[in-house]
Amino acid sequence: MQNFSISIIGAGNISWHLAKNLFVKGYKINQIYSRKIQNAEAISNLVKAEAIDSISELKNNSDLLIICVTDSAINEVVSKINFQPKLIVHTAGSLDINILQKFNNYGVFYPLQTFSKNSELDISNTPFCIEANTKENEEILKTVAHCLTNAIYELNSEQRQQCHLAAVFANNFSNHMFHIAEKLLSEKNISFDILKPLILETANKVQNTTPLLAQTGPASRNNTITINNHLELLNSSQLEKIYSFVSQNILDYKNGNLP
Amino acid sequence: MQNFSISIIGAGNISWHLAKNLFVKGYKINQIYSRKIQNAEAISNLVKAEAIDSISELKNNSDLLIICVTDSAINEVVSKINFQPKLIVHTAGSLDINILQKFNNYGVFYPLQTFSKNSELDISNTPFCIEANTKENEEILKTVAHCLTNAIYELNSEQRQQCHLAAVFANNFSNHMFHIAEKLLSEKNISFDILKPLILETANKVQNTTPLLAQTGPASRNNTITINNHLELLNSSQLEKIYSFVSQNILDYKNGNLP
Repeated sequence: MQNFSISIIGAGNISWHLAKNLFVKGYKINQIYSRKIQNAEAISNLVKAEAIDSISELKNNSDLLIICVTDSAINEVVSKINFQPKLIVHTAGSLDINILQKFNNYGVFYPLQTFSKNSELDISNTPFCIEANTKENEEILKTVAHCLTNAIYELNSEQRQQCHLAAVFANNFSNHMFHIAEKLLSEKNISFDILKPLILETANKVQNTTPLLAQTGPASRNNTITINNHLELLNSSQLEKIYSFVSQNILDYKNGNLP
Repeated sequence: MQNFSISIIGAGNISWHLAKNLFVKGYKINQIYSRKIQNAEAISNLVKAEAIDSISELKNNSDLLIICVTDSAINEVVSKINFQPKLIVHTAGSLDINILQKFNNYGVFYPLQTFSKNSELDISNTPFCIEANTKENEEILKTVAHCLTNAIYELNSEQRQQCHLAAVFANNFSNHMFHIAEKLLSEKNISFDILKPLILETANKVQNTTPLLAQTGPASRNNTITINNHLELLNSSQLEKIYSFVSQNILDYKNGNLP
């Protein structure tokens, strides 16, 4: 969009990817804020923006103000913004749109993806969850999102929070299963490399089938001999609990005991 | 290998992928056994082999006999083979090499991957775990594996069983996290499609970094507000238990409370 300008509050992983991609798509980035000026500068230098380390330096000259700070810091940031931005959004999956209700024009611009500064990512597949306090603001956010991605979802706060919860299982918890697997391998001096093709294929499979249909292994076959062998191999009560509960849950779904 | 011939006992997912790939690489496939002749025929027609549905029809004319039946059926198959094959292997991650010790030449040929008949897979990245009762037999198995893959691991039975346990976490349990996520989304009428890019990126990330470094989310940040919100959103005591235990485990590793 010609002459549409954006400022970003926060200099973490989401800020990094949003700023870079919005800049590449031709948006003017005015200011990047971080408590640590070096973090703001690291991004602002890339996208020809001004780096600031105080909210009081934030100018009311942007068409869109994007808050990308960690969930627990948003309220403090909001309390310090003493002007009425043209449009202000947060990017948090778990937070209600109403935390921005002191403003006239506000919304949510939540990219459902795991971002790391040092990991390149094609943002064009990233689902963006959009919510706004008016239909007009929603259209503005959809126009910005369309420049970045093909996947736009209009979700209310309740739906978005459920998405965030689901993402914790799909991303954080599955990643933790990888971590446990790595620990188990290292106990027997086996490289984590051996599991990498399996991990990729696990993710590939559910792109085209449901996780229930993709499921294999001792729990889904109720192979109690292997399950008991595995429980004996685990020398950690925490891991035994996780193994037992997850296995039982797999079997309960398989058998239709759970809705 | 010219003139090296193979027969396969079993017609499940592993059999399907092994037979097809070995055939493409120029191996002669003599016979495919399944209790259900149609299953044997479905594969044997593809690889120009004979389909049989009784172990007594198995001829001792192959350089390698590969057992691909489900773990719990291997002992029965073994008991029915009344000749000395040139070399016989099983393909089970969880079973000791010694279940084949009645034979003179035996080993294990375990592909560490999740196979589905209807899902194409480039086998050249699949790790094959090799074990044999003699150095000579090990060399034969490595030669066959080299035709299929670039990733060959010489593991003893104890290591292979640990790999299998690790694979249950990395594959079955992470896939179950996807399943739970899908269920949570459907409660609020949200398509599972919204999580697919995140799931792919979760698997991509750990190809180049450790799962511990890749970890994000409320548990690793010890964000108790979000964690408690999530526990309230879950209306299932089983899911609450899984959420709590996995979150606690993530935090314990993050804080170095676990080795």
